[in-house]
Amino acid sequence: MKIVHTVEEMQAIRRTLSGSIGFVPTMGALHNGHIALIKQARNENDIVIVSVFVNPTQFLKGEDLEKYPKKIESDSKICELCKVDYLFMPQTPTMYSNDEVLVKAPNLKSYTLEGERRPGHFDGVLQVVLKLFNLVRPSNAYFGKKDAQQLVLIQQMVRNFFLPITVIACDIVRESDGLALSSRNVYLSEEQRKEALAISKSLRSAAEHIGAKMLDCQTLKIQMQNIMKNLDIEYIAFVNREFQEIDTIILGNSIILIAVKVGSTRLIDNIWI
Amino acid sequence: MKIVHTVEEMQAIRRTLSGSIGFVPTMGALHNGHIALIKQARNENDIVIVSVFVNPTQFLKGEDLEKYPKKIESDSKICELCKVDYLFMPQTPTMYSNDEVLVKAPNLKSYTLEGERRPGHFDGVLQVVLKLFNLVRPSNAYFGKKDAQQLVLIQQMVRNFFLPITVIACDIVRESDGLALSSRNVYLSEEQRKEALAISKSLRSAAEHIGAKMLDCQTLKIQMQNIMKNLDIEYIAFVNREFQEIDTIILGNSIILIAVKVGSTRLIDNIWI
Repeated sequence: MKIVHTVEEMQAIRRTLSGSIGFVPTMGALHNGHIALIKQARNENDIVIVSVFVNPTQFLKGEDLEKYPKKIESDSKICELCKVDYLFMPQTPTMYSNDEVLVKAPNLKSYTLEGERRPGHFDGVLQVVLKLFNLVRPSNAYFGKKDAQQLVLIQQMVRNFFLPITVIACDIVRESDGLALSSRNVYLSEEQRKEALAISKSLRSAAEHIGAKMLDCQTLKIQMQNIMKNLDIEYIAFVNREFQEIDTIILGNSIILIAVKVGSTRLIDNIWI
Repeated sequence: MKIVHTVEEMQAIRRTLSGSIGFVPTMGALHNGHIALIKQARNENDIVIVSVFVNPTQFLKGEDLEKYPKKIESDSKICELCKVDYLFMPQTPTMYSNDEVLVKAPNLKSYTLEGERRPGHFDGVLQVVLKLFNLVRPSNAYFGKKDAQQLVLIQQMVRNFFLPITVIACDIVRESDGLALSSRNVYLSEEQRKEALAISKSLRSAAEHIGAKMLDCQTLKIQMQNIMKNLDIEYIAFVNREFQEIDTIILGNSIILIAVKVGSTRLIDNIWI
């Protein structure tokens, strides 16, 4: 595995590559969720490129950019064990300059839910993903469904900008007790960790009710609120795959999303119905 | 020469192409300025692709989108005579959908001069150029220096987004009497056409003075205003190649730009020093 540190080096390497390229962009602190993406990329492509870059433009002022977990050593080992070909770990100055051409996420999808709480967050996400896509020029790019809104926006950017890339949506990976994997889980105390189980429990419960033909979102929401009554709920949302709010579950075209705060740690989770 | 009408057709064709690709994006109504770009692209590449698309997102409300000259027949003939391989003439609905991911031109360079008079214009230019670049994926893209600010912004977008494309800046083509070629020249009456000659005359005069070591922009400006005293001057500007205003000409790193109105027709011209 080759570790690549600069944009220029990545560009030079890319010019030499042929065959299908699978790309997994990450912010590092790799966990089993990322590993699942990398393994799928490895299975489906000739070459696998992983990027680790904590992108400053997607953090708002006061967010956890500075303390976002960094685990360069273990990230490298994980990538090596997963038979990654190139690990791209650029520093910020090689990725950004002053007063840049910017990407602006579409209003409807990007200023609700995560975007409402984090205005401009998705602009930064799309900006860095576009840069990375243009550097790596992958055939297939792998993203987890956990960041559902991000995934839907990236899919839209690929469509709107006519990027010749297939975006592969990968299932959420969970601990055996149901907690969705997240780099931010390391912030949780043991007790908070237990409290956080109510999140996935409420999603499982909603799925069971939907299986029993309970499709009314308001009713589902009340049941979920009840299960998470000890948590600080930011939102429980019901949207279609275009991220428009829905009143009634449409099987095959719905996502239920949750954001909560457990202590000072913000956690999100969702289920695709 | 093959005429391509849809995004999907262009994508399918692009997948079959190899070798160097020269790309000339235009809004049609092709004149000798465009032909010079196409000929240069033909000389320097294996494959030449020209696009003709009057891009709605770069026109402001009240501008001449509806009456912008359209000459599909003669444009096709010109491209055929210039041995273009593919002429891409998409309709708006194949290029755009609703509530898209947008491109935002950088503030400093895009809200001065042309951008000050036409706020949002360059956002639309960069948006369509990015789409076209991703569809055509050219090795080399050819732009005239006449739209100097546009050219500098496109060069910046290519840098910021890490697009693997070389932007080739081509000299302004002029009538024998000095008038810079423009698709909008067809709007001019015979008399307006004559009045408009003061534009290029003032630029030539400035260049002569600069040749004689007169580098003070304010002095040059007064002389140019004097030559154009019968025209409705919007601006005479002196900038470096990063489009920052300058007080003194720096040889090899300056552009003098003019925008005037002749009747209701807006004309721009410039000289790179």
